[in-house]
Amino acid sequence: MLGLMQQRELLISSFLDYAEAYHPRVEVVSRLRDGTLHRIGWGGIADRARRLAQALQRLGIRRGARVATLAWNTHRHLELFFGVTGSGIVLHTVNPRLFPEQLRYIIDHAENGVVFFDVEFAGLVADLAPHLPTVHTYVALGVRDELPDLALPNLLAYEDLLAAEDGDFAWPMFDENSASSLCYTSGTTGNPKGVLYSHRSTVLHTFSLMAVDTMAISARETLLPCAPLFHVNCWGIPYAAAGTGAKLVLPGSRLDGESLWELLRDEGVTFAAAVPTVWLTLFAWMERQADLNPGALKLRRVLSGGTAVPRVVIDTLRDRFGATLLQAWGMTELSPLGTVGNLLPRHDALDEEARTALRLKQGRTIYGIELRVVDEAGRPLPRDGTSVGLIQARGPWVLSGYFKGDGGQAVDADGWFGTGDVGTLDADGFLTITDRAKDVVKSGGEWISSIELENLAVGHPAVQEAAVIAARHARWQERPLLLVTCKEGRSVTKAELLAFLAPKVAKWWLPDDVICVDAMPHTATGKVQKARLRSEYADWLERG
Amino acid sequence: MLGLMQQRELLISSFLDYAEAYHPRVEVVSRLRDGTLHRIGWGGIADRARRLAQALQRLGIRRGARVATLAWNTHRHLELFFGVTGSGIVLHTVNPRLFPEQLRYIIDHAENGVVFFDVEFAGLVADLAPHLPTVHTYVALGVRDELPDLALPNLLAYEDLLAAEDGDFAWPMFDENSASSLCYTSGTTGNPKGVLYSHRSTVLHTFSLMAVDTMAISARETLLPCAPLFHVNCWGIPYAAAGTGAKLVLPGSRLDGESLWELLRDEGVTFAAAVPTVWLTLFAWMERQADLNPGALKLRRVLSGGTAVPRVVIDTLRDRFGATLLQAWGMTELSPLGTVGNLLPRHDALDEEARTALRLKQGRTIYGIELRVVDEAGRPLPRDGTSVGLIQARGPWVLSGYFKGDGGQAVDADGWFGTGDVGTLDADGFLTITDRAKDVVKSGGEWISSIELENLAVGHPAVQEAAVIAARHARWQERPLLLVTCKEGRSVTKAELLAFLAPKVAKWWLPDDVICVDAMPHTATGKVQKARLRSEYADWLERG
Repeated sequence: MLGLMQQRELLISSFLDYAEAYHPRVEVVSRLRDGTLHRIGWGGIADRARRLAQALQRLGIRRGARVATLAWNTHRHLELFFGVTGSGIVLHTVNPRLFPEQLRYIIDHAENGVVFFDVEFAGLVADLAPHLPTVHTYVALGVRDELPDLALPNLLAYEDLLAAEDGDFAWPMFDENSASSLCYTSGTTGNPKGVLYSHRSTVLHTFSLMAVDTMAISARETLLPCAPLFHVNCWGIPYAAAGTGAKLVLPGSRLDGESLWELLRDEGVTFAAAVPTVWLTLFAWMERQADLNPGALKLRRVLSGGTAVPRVVIDTLRDRFGATLLQAWGMTELSPLGTVGNLLPRHDALDEEARTALRLKQGRTIYGIELRVVDEAGRPLPRDGTSVGLIQARGPWVLSGYFKGDGGQAVDADGWFGTGDVGTLDADGFLTITDRAKDVVKSGGEWISSIELENLAVGHPAVQEAAVIAARHARWQERPLLLVTCKEGRSVTKAELLAFLAPKVAKWWLPDDVICVDAMPHTATGKVQKARLRSEYADWLERG
Repeated sequence: MLGLMQQRELLISSFLDYAEAYHPRVEVVSRLRDGTLHRIGWGGIADRARRLAQALQRLGIRRGARVATLAWNTHRHLELFFGVTGSGIVLHTVNPRLFPEQLRYIIDHAENGVVFFDVEFAGLVADLAPHLPTVHTYVALGVRDELPDLALPNLLAYEDLLAAEDGDFAWPMFDENSASSLCYTSGTTGNPKGVLYSHRSTVLHTFSLMAVDTMAISARETLLPCAPLFHVNCWGIPYAAAGTGAKLVLPGSRLDGESLWELLRDEGVTFAAAVPTVWLTLFAWMERQADLNPGALKLRRVLSGGTAVPRVVIDTLRDRFGATLLQAWGMTELSPLGTVGNLLPRHDALDEEARTALRLKQGRTIYGIELRVVDEAGRPLPRDGTSVGLIQARGPWVLSGYFKGDGGQAVDADGWFGTGDVGTLDADGFLTITDRAKDVVKSGGEWISSIELENLAVGHPAVQEAAVIAARHARWQERPLLLVTCKEGRSVTKAELLAFLAPKVAKWWLPDDVICVDAMPHTATGKVQKARLRSEYADWLERG
């Protein structure tokens, strides 16, 4: 027997409708290329998103087609988030920092017919264009006058497109399972894989972002997403901002300390989302200033994810800003949210040290996502905070497969997605990531965390960067090998480093060898390319 | 093109799974019949709900069947909320305060095979049983020893049923559009109408309850729902409590001041949901006590709905308890939530009087529900806070039709449900209810609010209760007629009452006549039966 409730489709356009109806004058503030601030209300964003929808219609873009963006966090990119998806067209947000061959691969793989790009990326786009056979139209996100002289086929100016429309457009209703947006993972090996979100998955994920125990985004917040809009839909923040009518502050491409400080101070930011590097950059800038009073800011909560958060970020935000750092964990395949580090009522009784220990974990499992730890055979391990295994996820905002099936089977028969992360879950649902599955060192059947060893190694005053990889070993199958680069003018010996690590780890965790290298290989997104290190050094201990 | 995200069904069992996994020791505290408190963790509730599911299977109850409850707010009723719905069976929560003929009608209409009842209702059930042809099994919510000697066919004891099972049961997966629960509206005219909720509508409604701008239910709260579990699923609070792992305090049938005070104080209640009467009762009891310090309670938020909240409740909660009253509006057909009176950031700058004026409204439109005001021809009216019209609602937790179609067409072709309420919406989405559509007085094409006149009339020191109805009028079609009962030992004349009202309303709003009656007719839920008054007095002004 079915219930007798309305079958309203869960569509992204409902967020913008809500913002326009009830919060039309709440501001979206954007840092433009020239450093000035642009202001528009949610009502204006909605009007322009509707004009964009009309322009897409006029350009003949059909539902289900994928259009690409190469853009920073500004109001125009935000308008694309709603105008494209609301039309039933798929928004493919491309990370402009990828290597050119990756950009060519994913734009081709996504079969993008239109590319919207910030004027900053005009040169990049011009270089790519000859290698993008599917693209028939380029739209520069600005006015015609701003455009450099580019030899691009069918080059249009975004503001001209919008000016030609009247905004008299109603968002269509369609199946909530329709694709809404597309993001590619930037893996360290193999081709990028596409994750194709649906309107339904996005709306459910956004509901979660509004929940107190998750991101608690509400009409009372002023949100500063430093995470790029092209990074997993900016963690879903643009949708939650519209669905609550929150004020939104978009920093453009300027994440330097001074620019950030100005936005925090002048716009009354209450909630910011950024990776730790952004905060470390801000703190470094602050040290060079006189008379700053971070305690007077309205900043109360900071969400961080993507990498473990150094303790200094947590402590500084708490002690100097009066703000709480919430560590979150997720990934492209999870829309991205799987955990957020909100503490529980009984943690109020803990001392600051114990509370900080919880904040150093990768967050607490949220309602809507199921997480579990399994061993290599796929058998569930206890959620006891100590059993290390592979982390699997399941839920209505977890992918079911990669775009076009390219990337292999994503989930098992029961719907579990192997995240590729290794770690523990505790009884409260707190997650601790100890490693990536492909980076863990399997020594005689026991696992050694490469991340933990790296974190300890960079604690040595001479070490700039550290990477631990598994080197083949006759007796133990694998043993840890530590590679380091040194800070300018500093050096360190193997004996010194091992002596530094010895009191900090179990004896059998100590690396079998230490190699000082001049430079580490990095991915386009700044991660150490461990795959490359492995191909170079996996046989190091066998070389004899 | 469809997205490639998991098609996980949105099922109520996911809330209990979450509570059991991550908050097994968080308490559900229940006031039992003898006044003592019963304590169990969410883990225990989950275990017992699974045993209940096994027992339902053993009793041969199939998916889609409707089982009835006649029960107060205790852990056993809560277990039914999850054990029944989680099994794919429909939970029909019956209001035991209905008149016997209404109870017979709805149990028969719902075709309930099993009735679960609190031992308090044994007499009521025994009286009803001979008239309930569909019911084959009665289950008393207690242990066998507690049962009075009842001549009921197949009388079972709930605790015996649970004790016979082992709890080794996994919640089944099924279509999220399956019916989950059934509530009948207790209209003042005609037969009660059934609203059949689905798992999907319930899960989406619960997501909304977790949102900061709605009820903001989270793991940090201790919830005291005084609204009965049989009243529109207790406003959805039990589901949100499980979905967040909040502590839940269930007051049983004891809503007297002392019992309530004890729960607020001893259980650390942070959030309570109750109609204004409950608070007025508590305040009256408090006045008779010495040395109470409501400011020391942890109560911070109070949700109230179902009727306009008197200002004294708002002021007392704020000034003496340090708690904020949030007025909410909704109805059975809306699951029930449509608005919650959270203020906006710019309201922080208002003075207390202006903020209280906003809190006296019936709440602000929440994301997920569309509300609009229309005139009698169905044309939308401006959301300007002054245009009075009929309130319509639409959304994924609004009904599409009444159970079995009995009750007429519920929504129009565009999905709009006519709520039967008359009022205004303002630009921010704040709703003000001025009347019920059937009670409004249409005088020469202009509407006069019966509720507003009644609220003013009860302000007269001699008036106990007031009712305004539309009396037919030769020239103006309808004119207001005021009926009042007087407080014991008091009396009032027509001239006195009109003189009292005159400075408070527009001249054309003044009632054409005032009638003092000995008693008002009431419905089972305590509302004045205006339909009966109309049938008696509609021709009053024509009698000459």
